[in-house]
Parts: sequence; structure tokens; C-alpha cells
Amino acid sequence: MIKGRVAGKVWSSRRIETVPTGALLEVDIGRDSRLVAFDPLGCATGELVLIAQGSVAAGYFDGRTVPVDALIIASIDEQSSKDA
Amino acid sequence: MIKGRVAGKVWSSRRIETVPTGALLEVDIGRDSRLVAFDPLGCATGELVLIAQGSVAAGYFDGRTVPVDALIIASIDEQSSKDA
Amino acid sequence: MIKGRVAGKVWSSRRIETVPTGALLEVDIGRDSRLVAFDPLGCATGELVLIAQGSVAAGYFDGRTVPVDALIIASIDEQSSKDA
Amino acid sequence: MIKGRVAGKVWSSRRIETVPTGALLEVDIGRDSRLVAFDPLGCATGELVLIAQGSVAAGYFDGRTVPVDALIIASIDEQSSKDA
Amino acid sequence: MIKGRVAGKVWSSRRIETVPTGALLEVDIGRDSRLVAFDPLGCATGELVLIAQGSVAAGYFDGRTVPVDALIIASIDEQSSKDA
Repeated sequence: MIKGRVAGKVWSSRRIETVPTGALLEVDIGRDSRLVAFDPLGCATGELVLIAQGSVAAGYFDGRTVPVDALIIASIDEQSSKDA
Repeated sequence: MIKGRVAGKVWSSRRIETVPTGALLEVDIGRDSRLVAFDPLGCATGELVLIAQGSVAAGYFDGRTVPVDALIIASIDEQSSKDA
Repeated sequence: MIKGRVAGKVWSSRRIETVPTGALLEVDIGRDSRLVAFDPLGCATGELVLIAQGSVAAGYFDGRTVPVDALIIASIDEQSSKDA
Repeated sequence: MIKGRVAGKVWSSRRIETVPTGALLEVDIGRDSRLVAFDPLGCATGELVLIAQGSVAAGYFDGRTVPVDALIIASIDEQSSKDA
Repeated sequence: MIKGRVAGKVWSSRRIETVPTGALLEVDIGRDSRLVAFDPLGCATGELVLIAQGSVAAGYFDGRTVPVDALIIASIDEQSSKDA
């Protein structure tokens, strides 16, 4: 998985029907790179999150075949993670 | 998923038979990189799109085994995404 | 998928038995990178080709479990693609 | 697989329910890159570990569908590996 | 697939039980990058090999669920490949 900071929301004007309803967030993953992940947790801009990528991300949707290759799986507790 | 801007269409002179019929678009994904994605939405050159990669892209084709590892899943509403 | 130009053929002195018989071509994919792809189309050195990567590449082999993660799926018509 | 050195533990304040219980470790994989892997071995900060990525990482969880794309699969014996 | 040159053997002090027995080799894949691959062919340090990555690598192990994402699938005949 990778860590990243939520940079904003992505709105689509058109989408294929198998894209699940829900928030698509743009996440800054460092080294001048961003990706877009499906967010089941309702994260806010600026939040530090953990992202799973690839087919395991699509596995979250209960057997439905969805074109999702990045999923926010956790919001990171920055303070505790720093002291770890 | 990743964001990218459609740069043009790719035409093949020969292809293996399992490549689904439909548009193959070249997309600029930033940092001097491009990829080619299958386009089910009929996007135009210059359009900002969202791309899913890997085996989840092939999942779009209703159980058929197709050699597609990148799929345009949405056209991005640039204005709304900017204000998000 | 990604575009690349065929740079030559790869010959193996030894291989595991599940590698399918057929040509393995080295392809220049730009930015100082090369990969090796299975070629079902009989492409020549210098040809511009389209490559699918990951488990979708192995799907081409009719249910056999093969260790192929890159497959040439089309030869690109350079002229038409330029004018697109 | 890739080698990396454990840099610390990641704690989440919120997570989706399919994330398995257990340690999530941040691992330095060189070239200014880090990833977060599930750790079934109880590794310590500073330990050199081997990481498997992608859907094979999720396979470790006995058929459960978990959003894990990186798994620590071994702790590396640095001395023996150096002399190899 | 990618080409790489065997750099040495990796020994583990601890590993999860689903890691198959057999050699784990560190391979230099160019551009200052290395990976670790399972070696079914008994390759030697300095040998030029071909590596398949991702879930197709795990497919080699006859239906067993193993956390292997890189597999040496061939030893490359350098002379013939040069003349190709």
C-alpha cells in the first residue's frame, strides 16, 4: 500500500456505468505524482490516507466487476505513526 | 486510477483477434509519459479523462478474455473538480 | 497498453516448460526502458507495436497458465495514427 | 519481490472493515520510495525484509477478499545474503 | 517480461510458510534497480535471465497460493540474442 494526502475531489461529466457511486479523491502520493482513488471512508482534503492498488482494490465491491484500481483503505493517525 | 489528457487515436494495421473493436486512444498522463487506453465513452482529443489500469480494465468486457490493461472510465468535469 | 518499437529477438538457452513456444521480442518503450513481450503477430525489428501487460497478457493463451506478463496485441499504423 | 528496510509502524484512526488486523509497517525500498506492507512476521524497525506485491499479497489471507497489495514474506539474513 | 543479470542469492532467517522452497535470487534490472525472483532453473551469479512479474509468476506453482510476484522463466542466450 502507499501513503498519500488527499488533494481534492474529482467530478466526472460522463462515466461508464460500472464505476460505483461514491467519492473519487485525487491523492498526492509524493515525488510529483498523483492518483485518483475511490473513497469509502469520507476523507477530507488534507487528510493522510492509505491506498491499496490493483485488482485487490476492486475486491472491496462484493463480487461486482468494477473498474477501480485504487481504494482508500484507512485514514492514518499521524501522531501515533510518528512515535512508532 | 490516473488522470490524463487525450492526445489522439491509435490505428492498428494488424491486431490479435481478442482485441475488442472500439477506439484506442493515446493519453498523456504527465511526467513525459503516455499510455494507450480503450475508450468506451467516445472521448475527443484534448479531453481530460480518468483511466483504470490492470486486470480491472479487462473486467469491463463482460467475462470475455481481452488483452486490455487500460480503460477510460470517465470524462472529468474540470471546472467542478477545480473548485472541489 | 503502451507503444514501443521492436528492437530484436530474445533467444533462451534454457526456459521453464510453461513458457509458450513462439517469439519473444525485445521492445524499446522509451525513457531508456525496454521490456520483452510475447509476439503472436510475427513483427519485425523496427515495427511500432502495442503491448498489453500484466495478467491480461497471459489470458491470451486459452486458459493455460503461462508466465507471460507482456503481449504484443497490435502493429500500429503509424501514418493513420499521426493524422488522427 | 523487493527488498526494503522497516522504517516504522503505521497506525490508522479509521479503516475499512476488510483490512485484516495486524501490523502495517512502513518500509523504505530505496530510491527515495516507501511503501506500507502487512507484516505477519512481527518485524522490527531497521530489519531488512522481503516484500511481495500485487494480488499475490492478498492471497495470503486464506480466500478472504482483503485490500492488501504488499506483504512482508521474509526477514532477510543479511550476512548470508552478502556472502552468497 | 524484463531482462536482468543475477547479482546473488537471498537468504532469509524467517519466512511465512507459503513461500515455496527454492532459490531466491537478487537480479539487477538496470537503471539502479534490483528485484528478487524465485529461480526454478538454478541460475548462477552473472547469468542474464528473463523475469515474469505479477500474478502470472505465482501461477507457476500448480494452483498453490504462493506470495511470489517475480519468477525467472528463462536463461538468455546472449550471443544469439545479440545477432537477432
